[in-house]
Amino acid sequence: MSSDVRFCPRKTVEQVEEGDELAPRFDEHGLIPVVTTDFTSGELLMHAYMNAEALAKTIETGEAHYWSRSRQAIWHKGATSGLIQRVKELRIDDDQDCVWLRVEVAGGASCHVGYRSCFYRTVPIGAEGKAAGHRLRFTEQEKVFDPKDVYGDAPNPTQL
Amino acid sequence: MSSDVRFCPRKTVEQVEEGDELAPRFDEHGLIPVVTTDFTSGELLMHAYMNAEALAKTIETGEAHYWSRSRQAIWHKGATSGLIQRVKELRIDDDQDCVWLRVEVAGGASCHVGYRSCFYRTVPIGAEGKAAGHRLRFTEQEKVFDPKDVYGDAPNPTQL
Repeated sequence: MSSDVRFCPRKTVEQVEEGDELAPRFDEHGLIPVVTTDFTSGELLMHAYMNAEALAKTIETGEAHYWSRSRQAIWHKGATSGLIQRVKELRIDDDQDCVWLRVEVAGGASCHVGYRSCFYRTVPIGAEGKAAGHRLRFTEQEKVFDPKDVYGDAPNPTQL
Repeated sequence: MSSDVRFCPRKTVEQVEEGDELAPRFDEHGLIPVVTTDFTSGELLMHAYMNAEALAKTIETGEAHYWSRSRQAIWHKGATSGLIQRVKELRIDDDQDCVWLRVEVAGGASCHVGYRSCFYRTVPIGAEGKAAGHRLRFTEQEKVFDPKDVYGDAPNPTQL
């Protein structure tokens, strides 16, 4: 990796939680989960993963890069769809095993199904959930784009 | 599990992405990642995991339950600290392998280190990051509580 971004070794709990060293913890697959929200609305857009290279590229370029688990490749979000995510703020959590990206999205959509957010359905809870037979409810009625127009015949990343 | 919440088997991509059946995908450890944001401010509070029982309990009770990977046990958030998370909305993503909780937090803090959010540090990006030597910056100056008062001698969950 030709990046100038270096990750520090994890030495103590105090260093990781209370310090100013970037010492991310990657899991047994070399990945760290990423939460991506819309900078303006605060809406949760997607949940994905980065490997060390994707995190370094995101920090360097200010554009979201992920690791695609279905394609097993670095994934510069928007390279295919044009829906680039410009990172306005990048945060890391207490034990540095999760990244939060606050982004502006060109084109207004982040979800491969065509919706603005990947989280376009609610699960009703409590008594309401029981009454609804735990059926999901849609929060977005209209897709922002037609996935066929954008992705063509590329395989759907959803795995059963 | 005595719950009346039932998860549907995952049959087709269309069912999972476009349907109203709750058919969550748990990973090889039986877990699903959860993103928890503050209902009012939209701030990201924490990233955690649920197993099937924790998800069912959350849906039934309207209070956030997680799976603690460090303690290997169901974790009713706030049972020790009093910082209960009341779920105002629960969403699931396109391929149903991630849950979004929008919560109100009793006591105003969610982080075991004592901050309001677990994500209390930014990673500077682009030229700014280079200039800062990629040092983290704190976004919260004051802790909401002292972890020693709340957790006493309980082991810190952060793993190196």
